Amino acid sequence: MALVVQKYGGSSVADAHSVKRVAKRIAEAKRAGNDVVVVVSAMGDTTDELLDLAQQITPLPPQRELDILLTAGERISMALLAMAITNLGVKAKSFTGQQAGVITDAVHGRARIVDVVPHRIRETLEKGQVAIVAGFQGVTQQTNDVTTLGRGGSDTTAVALAAGLGADVCEIYTDVDGVFTADPRIVPSARKIDRVTYEEMLELAASGAKVLALRSVEYARRYGVPVHVRSSFSSAPGTLVAAAPQEEEAVEAPIISGVAHDRSESKITVVGVPDHVGTAAGIFEVVAASGANIDMIVQNVSAAATGLTDISFTLPDGDGPATMAALAGVQAEIGFSSLQYDDQIGKLSLVGAGMKSHPGVSAQLFGALRDAGINIEMISTSEIRISVVTREDSLDDAVRAVHTAFGLDVADGEAVVYAGTGR
Amino acid sequence: MALVVQKYGGSSVADAHSVKRVAKRIAEAKRAGNDVVVVVSAMGDTTDELLDLAQQITPLPPQRELDILLTAGERISMALLAMAITNLGVKAKSFTGQQAGVITDAVHGRARIVDVVPHRIRETLEKGQVAIVAGFQGVTQQTNDVTTLGRGGSDTTAVALAAGLGADVCEIYTDVDGVFTADPRIVPSARKIDRVTYEEMLELAASGAKVLALRSVEYARRYGVPVHVRSSFSSAPGTLVAAAPQEEEAVEAPIISGVAHDRSESKITVVGVPDHVGTAAGIFEVVAASGANIDMIVQNVSAAATGLTDISFTLPDGDGPATMAALAGVQAEIGFSSLQYDDQIGKLSLVGAGMKSHPGVSAQLFGALRDAGINIEMISTSEIRISVVTREDSLDDAVRAVHTAFGLDVADGEAVVYAGTGR
Repeated sequence: MALVVQKYGGSSVADAHSVKRVAKRIAEAKRAGNDVVVVVSAMGDTTDELLDLAQQITPLPPQRELDILLTAGERISMALLAMAITNLGVKAKSFTGQQAGVITDAVHGRARIVDVVPHRIRETLEKGQVAIVAGFQGVTQQTNDVTTLGRGGSDTTAVALAAGLGADVCEIYTDVDGVFTADPRIVPSARKIDRVTYEEMLELAASGAKVLALRSVEYARRYGVPVHVRSSFSSAPGTLVAAAPQEEEAVEAPIISGVAHDRSESKITVVGVPDHVGTAAGIFEVVAASGANIDMIVQNVSAAATGLTDISFTLPDGDGPATMAALAGVQAEIGFSSLQYDDQIGKLSLVGAGMKSHPGVSAQLFGALRDAGINIEMISTSEIRISVVTREDSLDDAVRAVHTAFGLDVADGEAVVYAGTGR
Repeated sequence: MALVVQKYGGSSVADAHSVKRVAKRIAEAKRAGNDVVVVVSAMGDTTDELLDLAQQITPLPPQRELDILLTAGERISMALLAMAITNLGVKAKSFTGQQAGVITDAVHGRARIVDVVPHRIRETLEKGQVAIVAGFQGVTQQTNDVTTLGRGGSDTTAVALAAGLGADVCEIYTDVDGVFTADPRIVPSARKIDRVTYEEMLELAASGAKVLALRSVEYARRYGVPVHVRSSFSSAPGTLVAAAPQEEEAVEAPIISGVAHDRSESKITVVGVPDHVGTAAGIFEVVAASGANIDMIVQNVSAAATGLTDISFTLPDGDGPATMAALAGVQAEIGFSSLQYDDQIGKLSLVGAGMKSHPGVSAQLFGALRDAGINIEMISTSEIRISVVTREDSLDDAVRAVHTAFGLDVADGEAVVYAGTGR
């Protein structure tokens, strides 16, 4: 008998019909002899609708109250799901984040889980019942206040509970069949990845793959929780995210696991920066103070004749306006000549644990882009990832070209069925 | 400086605009120097919408899960109200029933408050902040499970908190100006009652007046909490529900406080019952076992020739079918000849503490109905109430005739403004 934590997202419980469908799946897992804990998100667009209500009241709602408001969404879905499962003859009980023992820090709106003490969940399992837990929410230890974990928080709740309960696997149900070598909407020949390491999944999630929240992968890696990403519409196996296999097993592991892309970043270029010690530091202190989360940085070699250089960096689109305003405020002080803002960029990332031991991956990537006529504007690398910035309107072509160049396309005759929208 | 508990119903916080209007009123009470605790219901029809969702899942949802589902409604309204008050520059914090220390028994769906331990509410007041509390909900002491108090539960939450905090007054805000001598939709000349005793309010609430939930009045009487029923749309004083005034003040008190009516009952007649000892007991044991909440009972004098009698009783419409079925099942055993069911009845109740010391009130009531040509089918009385059953379609005429006969109509030239629907 296995202990399984299953997580269902908002699209899997969007209405009463979907709730009943998911309930059937859960009841089957229970009847198959497993102990089952279910983490559920708010139904469909509930969270956005509640946010909209808050905006109608005030443009800047107090975070503590916003968290109380938003957690109403999971309260609704978890109770309905418990009803639907009970209706199938399987006993089920629902629990808020607080009742499930999800303890967080007090940073409302993006709290971090600091501990999981799932006494009531264990009791429920011992009674042979299914435990339904509200995702996305926790409680502070000191003040007993309700917190939320931020977008993607339900994935993190599921992984944290799986770790706290010592579950055999954490199943993340979604509307796609698993993690793909590229977004199937862009690359129709993309294939489902059967297995990927935590490190690769971290790089994929950080590079724009939206199937798993980054923080949940970090959590899974830290506690060694195997995560199975799969479709709630089929019973086919999805993608297993787990530790790297032992060396002897790894012989056949592919060099590249996938190509991720991201359209949600912009590029700011600070033009004509005096090339003195400390100038770059001054610029990035201002950027950091504006709250921006910068990604890639490129500094040109300064022209000997002028002693001036240009510094470019990328950041999420949403951080653009505040950062531009902050930089404009220190133009005289730092002495740069102008600022450029470009939101028409795209980022392509090639991820694979194998590239550590295979030289030449970068050269092959740049060659593939050159052959496809695509210009590279910025480059950054980690041990298992290479990212390049291109024009946004050539990003799709770039993804397809790289996917083919690295032999990731589905071979002729292989059948791949996409269950959902392939996000 | 007074400590005021204010309760706002669902119609007072039906949308963002209404929430802001109520927030302004609360901020004014706070700025006037009061300590303010606010109890709030779910917005508009939220509770009914959630019930409908549950019905889409299963016709018989588990009560524990239904309570978790329904309490999401107050979570939304309380957070929005706290945001709106904060936005006006007055600090406010919202609390669930659990956080506010509303402890109940474990009867899900209609739990009773067994204790109120409002530590966090007191702390909040001591910091000079407004405390917003979710109405209608509490938590069990043993299992830490969420419960609901049933329809009208927010009134009870407000009165219980006022008692627990030793508040100076509990203000129940509604969409009418207060308690009226009759329903103004039926009797346009009805007048607002300035003051009414707990006992009279109990009789009015039990006889069909819907402005205050019966259980909240019981609670207020037990703990001596003055309750002020008033309109959230005006600043005019409403109706004060409080203990009977001292004898010397009571000289001018009116004999009759009001005329209530109720269309929600049906009448069952058991025809041809053998007039033996214990037969009536047998019938009402069956009725009680069916879960019906019976109101009035009349047994005819048995005809000497046959030794048979008829027994009639009234009960809520909703209890009718189950009770008829239960009685039909024991027809042979008890030996009555037939059953009659009549849902076309109306009940009129005349309530007034003064009738204790004023004989002749019954005679005056029956005379007024006779003069209006209205037939009386059943009669029941308490110390301060007389109720009669009439045909449902003559109930309105009966209410108007009695209201006039007891001098309750507004005198010529008195201006009465109805704020709302006068329910």
